[in-house]
Amino acid sequence: MSVAIVGLGLIGGSLARALSGQGVRVLGVDRPGVCRAARKARAIAATTSLEAAAREAQVLVLAASPSVNLRLLRKLARIAPAALVITDVTSVKVPIVREAARLELPRFVGGHPMAGRERSGFAASTAGLFRGRPWILTGGEPGALRRLRGLIRRVGARPVELTALDHDRLVAVLSHVPQIVSWALLHAAAADRVARRHLDLAGPGFLDMTRLASSPRALWKEILTGNRSEVRRALAALRRALSHDRFWG
Amino acid sequence: MSVAIVGLGLIGGSLARALSGQGVRVLGVDRPGVCRAARKARAIAATTSLEAAAREAQVLVLAASPSVNLRLLRKLARIAPAALVITDVTSVKVPIVREAARLELPRFVGGHPMAGRERSGFAASTAGLFRGRPWILTGGEPGALRRLRGLIRRVGARPVELTALDHDRLVAVLSHVPQIVSWALLHAAAADRVARRHLDLAGPGFLDMTRLASSPRALWKEILTGNRSEVRRALAALRRALSHDRFWG
Repeated sequence: MSVAIVGLGLIGGSLARALSGQGVRVLGVDRPGVCRAARKARAIAATTSLEAAAREAQVLVLAASPSVNLRLLRKLARIAPAALVITDVTSVKVPIVREAARLELPRFVGGHPMAGRERSGFAASTAGLFRGRPWILTGGEPGALRRLRGLIRRVGARPVELTALDHDRLVAVLSHVPQIVSWALLHAAAADRVARRHLDLAGPGFLDMTRLASSPRALWKEILTGNRSEVRRALAALRRALSHDRFWG
Repeated sequence: MSVAIVGLGLIGGSLARALSGQGVRVLGVDRPGVCRAARKARAIAATTSLEAAAREAQVLVLAASPSVNLRLLRKLARIAPAALVITDVTSVKVPIVREAARLELPRFVGGHPMAGRERSGFAASTAGLFRGRPWILTGGEPGALRRLRGLIRRVGARPVELTALDHDRLVAVLSHVPQIVSWALLHAAAADRVARRHLDLAGPGFLDMTRLASSPRALWKEILTGNRSEVRRALAALRRALSHDRFWG
């Protein structure tokens, strides 16, 4: 079996490392410099183009940014053999699942590994990133699902099925709003007349809560824009919770 | 030199362990069961009463809850020798510094080690809790300050001077509001129709940001009530930051 991974950043690179470590043949699609680093690290067996990857692999994983993945999906709808299982790893599922349905790609299954780090790029990838973590699949054709569940288990993750709608609502609450809060806590501290002179006095609690703020801003803008309505709802709920006096007597 | 510590919980217990480890004679004041545990752990050399501690020690540290510390301070104003240096370790400084001024205790210096854990009580205390951490002092009589700075350095912490007002504003931003946010994130997730069924899917970011939520609620109510006006101001700033669209495109 061979798996093509398009985009060898933190997630794609970690998946490449983990699958290669399990003896799976991994084909990598990315810029030449990134592919060279991935081959050197034995994360991929070979470098190829999207077209060749679609012909050669049994499973193709879109691991670029959300907007690039959507564009590549439209291209795959024209060139991919019907048997190819396609999945992605982006943090918002409704837009790409809808697009796959519109493109009539029954063997597409949306995916989202609930794992990550603040650093990005292939240099930040590790084979153990998914170990013990949930990996959400949005459901789809049974054969495609079975194959993806098998791959997910091979990298030590736990497949979980959720609808794209439930997924997007869930990550708005558990991931997207915490990301915004992390920025807002840092922003509020940097804007405070006294606190901004003494940020070095922050304790481990503040550091834990602002760690996410160093995540790549451009990628996050795409994610949050893609999940805008769920994020608005979750943010409104948080702001209501913040005004509950019962939290603070 | 001997130091009396009144209240052998997380902070008082850790200070007792650290000072004893440095060869300082530590007298402990707490309930009998806690004192027994502290003697067994060699965190204190002897158990005593507040009255005896005030006569015998050169430095007395109030490490009970904020309201108990205020009560003990009033008692010390009646019984303590003039030479006794008194400090405390609570997270809000204006109330106790004002009370010390009203009681005419010139050798009182407000203190706040910027260190902690979510667990509480003597069982959670460790000698290394303060190592490398800032320890805020609110200023006061030079001899008292000098003595406290020396003790703080001996437990591996870094003395920092701030006015009580600046301190309370700072901790509202860096500690008290993050505490409230941690509760609110957990509350909002538990209240969400979808998220509450899938809290086990939360990633490391959410877990980092809700770790503080397990801190002892009763102690926190006292802290937040004591710093109510600064907390209100900092919370309003955070809520404004959360509505900035620029954070999320």
